[in-house]
Amino acid sequence: MAEPKSNELMEKIVSLCKRRGFIYQSSEIYGGINGFWDYGPLGAELKRHVKDAWWKTMVRLRDDVAGLEATIIMSPKIWQASGHVDTFSDPMIDCKTCKGRFRADQTDEIPCPQKPSKCVNECHGEKTEPRAFNLMFQTYVGPVQDDSSVAYLRPETAQAIFAQFKNVLETSRQRVPFGIAQIGKAFRNEVTPRNYTFRSREFEQMELEFFIRPDEVVEAICGGVAKPEGDGHPGDPQPNWGWQLWHKYWVEERIRFYEGIGLPRNTLVEYWQTRQELAHYARATVDILYKFPFSKRDEKGELKGEELEGIAARSDFDLSQHERFSGKPMGVFDEELRVAWKNLDQAKQDELWKRYYEARKGYLERSGVDAEQASKDATEDADGLARGQYIPHVIEPSAGVDRLILALIADAYSEVTETDPKGKSETRVILKFHPRVAPIKVAVLPLLKNKPELVAKAMQVFNTLRREMNAYYDDGGSIGRRYARQDEAGTPFCVTIDFETLEGMKDGEWAGQTDTVTLRHRDGGRQERVKISEVLPVLLERVR
Amino acid sequence: MAEPKSNELMEKIVSLCKRRGFIYQSSEIYGGINGFWDYGPLGAELKRHVKDAWWKTMVRLRDDVAGLEATIIMSPKIWQASGHVDTFSDPMIDCKTCKGRFRADQTDEIPCPQKPSKCVNECHGEKTEPRAFNLMFQTYVGPVQDDSSVAYLRPETAQAIFAQFKNVLETSRQRVPFGIAQIGKAFRNEVTPRNYTFRSREFEQMELEFFIRPDEVVEAICGGVAKPEGDGHPGDPQPNWGWQLWHKYWVEERIRFYEGIGLPRNTLVEYWQTRQELAHYARATVDILYKFPFSKRDEKGELKGEELEGIAARSDFDLSQHERFSGKPMGVFDEELRVAWKNLDQAKQDELWKRYYEARKGYLERSGVDAEQASKDATEDADGLARGQYIPHVIEPSAGVDRLILALIADAYSEVTETDPKGKSETRVILKFHPRVAPIKVAVLPLLKNKPELVAKAMQVFNTLRREMNAYYDDGGSIGRRYARQDEAGTPFCVTIDFETLEGMKDGEWAGQTDTVTLRHRDGGRQERVKISEVLPVLLERVR
Repeated sequence: MAEPKSNELMEKIVSLCKRRGFIYQSSEIYGGINGFWDYGPLGAELKRHVKDAWWKTMVRLRDDVAGLEATIIMSPKIWQASGHVDTFSDPMIDCKTCKGRFRADQTDEIPCPQKPSKCVNECHGEKTEPRAFNLMFQTYVGPVQDDSSVAYLRPETAQAIFAQFKNVLETSRQRVPFGIAQIGKAFRNEVTPRNYTFRSREFEQMELEFFIRPDEVVEAICGGVAKPEGDGHPGDPQPNWGWQLWHKYWVEERIRFYEGIGLPRNTLVEYWQTRQELAHYARATVDILYKFPFSKRDEKGELKGEELEGIAARSDFDLSQHERFSGKPMGVFDEELRVAWKNLDQAKQDELWKRYYEARKGYLERSGVDAEQASKDATEDADGLARGQYIPHVIEPSAGVDRLILALIADAYSEVTETDPKGKSETRVILKFHPRVAPIKVAVLPLLKNKPELVAKAMQVFNTLRREMNAYYDDGGSIGRRYARQDEAGTPFCVTIDFETLEGMKDGEWAGQTDTVTLRHRDGGRQERVKISEVLPVLLERVR
Repeated sequence: MAEPKSNELMEKIVSLCKRRGFIYQSSEIYGGINGFWDYGPLGAELKRHVKDAWWKTMVRLRDDVAGLEATIIMSPKIWQASGHVDTFSDPMIDCKTCKGRFRADQTDEIPCPQKPSKCVNECHGEKTEPRAFNLMFQTYVGPVQDDSSVAYLRPETAQAIFAQFKNVLETSRQRVPFGIAQIGKAFRNEVTPRNYTFRSREFEQMELEFFIRPDEVVEAICGGVAKPEGDGHPGDPQPNWGWQLWHKYWVEERIRFYEGIGLPRNTLVEYWQTRQELAHYARATVDILYKFPFSKRDEKGELKGEELEGIAARSDFDLSQHERFSGKPMGVFDEELRVAWKNLDQAKQDELWKRYYEARKGYLERSGVDAEQASKDATEDADGLARGQYIPHVIEPSAGVDRLILALIADAYSEVTETDPKGKSETRVILKFHPRVAPIKVAVLPLLKNKPELVAKAMQVFNTLRREMNAYYDDGGSIGRRYARQDEAGTPFCVTIDFETLEGMKDGEWAGQTDTVTLRHRDGGRQERVKISEVLPVLLERVR
């Protein structure tokens, strides 16, 4: 089904992003490189603000999250433990006629590179059987290139968090429940990068691994596990929360985050993965989708949305895998559990022991450990409960920075058509970014650039503001044109120093009474007089 | 010469960094991976503050610098143009006996991996001839692994700036002189990573490429080129600055930056590369060295220092190379030059034309263009001056984030020995970070954790402070112990809510008169009473 309107919008967005320096094609002067995108001056600021907002919300404003910044290249054993070496692949086929390589599920969609000269699009000539093509970029570390020096560019930031779990636990004074957060680049050698920056080969993630007590431990300590009730945010975390409430909590926290940086709830879709879609270790996964212009439509013609973030309840799978592969214990000691366990009656101990045992045994068997050994290991694991020991479970809110940037730009994009007194009409772009993420927070504009008093005052205001937020000084062209330029960059506020400002002067000194400026709001174009001393606090309140 | 004292200090630093969560070995649970380091919770905050300080100083507080965030994997043609494919290599030899591979200049330093069983350390058995080993990590992009899909992890962030020079120029309203700044990861497959995080294989750079007019253009416009006079900072940029003054300016600006985040000038060395050391295209390079504990010592026993940053005057080499390799024009149009040129007399035009021509011809010949063609191309380049066209020159201040972090930790490291009334003495660590970069800016401590009024007030103060800076709440242990814990983390300020604070209360409400807290300074341990309403502004002034 053709969707001319959406495609047209995407074309406008791509064009604007290039023209205003949000996004360029990587290596453009060399013809580009497929699946790689650079952020220009405005894009780099937008991205910084988004990442800073995430870090502030997820790390600095929380007592229960610690930050981490790990390397992109790690020991390849990490990717064996995580399953990426074995299973992170697409099935590919080669066409013997045109020598092209295609994803097995896309041979009908992807045009033949030599079409129509050598092979027919529909069949791609004679094909090989599908073979697994790993999506991790591979390289070699050290001077010798052999099997022992193979390494990978991380395909996700999450695994570094699991690998450093014990180090962070031991050095940060955190106790379960707590989280470890990381922002950083990840790489996937996508066969067909597409939809502009949405599916690219190099991208950035913002991931939190939030470690929680298994439900059996919560029950031992609190006497029961609270269950989710009704819709909406479940409120402040409570000791009797099990994985379901923690999962719900993080879904709602993350939606609040998106609302807080300007994506209205009605542009988002909360999609619960079906049992068939879930990874084998996942108990539940909610994808937060944004309705991009290029999203497919459902039967009713509504945009279905594409993933911005996945919030997965991953049980104890990841830490268990790293424990098995590294031989290093990944369990924690929990004094509250040790004390509580002693006070349980035998029947309760047996019941909790059995449930924990079954879960551990299930994991071990699914991981290929034989039944007898699994039973033995699971017994040992469950025995640990009495000593206050267990492997934490995890809730993982995992977001893509570049997708979010694209969603913010798409959502901010709007056009306004204005007709001048001569009847000539012009359509221009306004990017309605939330002040928290807007690349430039405020532009300072002297009404005229050839009036030294206006310029001096404007510079003074500008120098005060720029210390606290990203500000821009512009004295070129008519004031209307300068406003339009800022609208297109998504700047929420303009401060204009005009003749009314100067009326506050007396004998070259500032008398102070009417020391005001025009504060112009991007959205709606509203203008108000504000005292100079009020400008900074008024803006700070809105941009933070 | 043995340097036990320095080594001992490095050991203490490494141990502290692990213990307090500044730096961990990457992939530690899998035995680590040589040359890769992760930043733990305190390290990640320290690094964020350092990068934010650089970005604020170099981009946001300047009108003449635009930001960029480019990809790590770029078109491989970029690395052909930059010379990295051909020349970014170490000479390596293989030992036929032990099968080890060694840098040709280090065979005497590096122990044989199989020593002493198979070969002698001094000779490493029978050796091959030295072969070039490229330091760029190589990978393949796309589903087919062949010569056409080879790509590299960038060994520096600088080249992306050159490749996107025209895009930024055209979309950012900047004109020469102006700069483009970028922070990001870079990768070098060092044969022998060493000195902790100082020489690692994955690291982060903060680079500025500052584009300036060639001296001939400055002279055409301003009638002359100002020369550096005396020592110290040359002051605000002037239109008549040539490359020498711009170079000096950036050296001094960068030293100011280091001083501003707490590295005293006497810990830094301003090292001017000798003519023999300079790259062939560089006119001058100043390395800013920091006297690390592991630095070598000169004849007088003074630490010589290791490079934190290089500030190179790179002429027009980089843009010229990309123009040649991409076939895309990298020159700029400068209206002031066009106008000025017309007003020059013929003799002056000829003189400037000739100097510009000679410089261009010299570059082209050194780049392998034959004499006749070089002469033709250089004529065309010099003819452009009359139309206001030229290729900008560049000054490059290029800093390593990880080295700076290590320098800041080494510089902050100090010990204090205290003796308690019973005569028992204890030595503890104080990290004297500058408040601007300290991971935690302030800790908020209720004197006792079992006094609800103290706790409530402490939480209130904490919640106010944490919105503006990274703050930490700690109610565990004696107040002295909590101070010591913060000293070791490098927290410059502690705010203690004590009984004197509570004296400001009346009937459960705050009467306000004596609403004060103890502000404790890490350095010197000085304590002062400060009104609660004053705490935030007092701290903000010091941490920004």
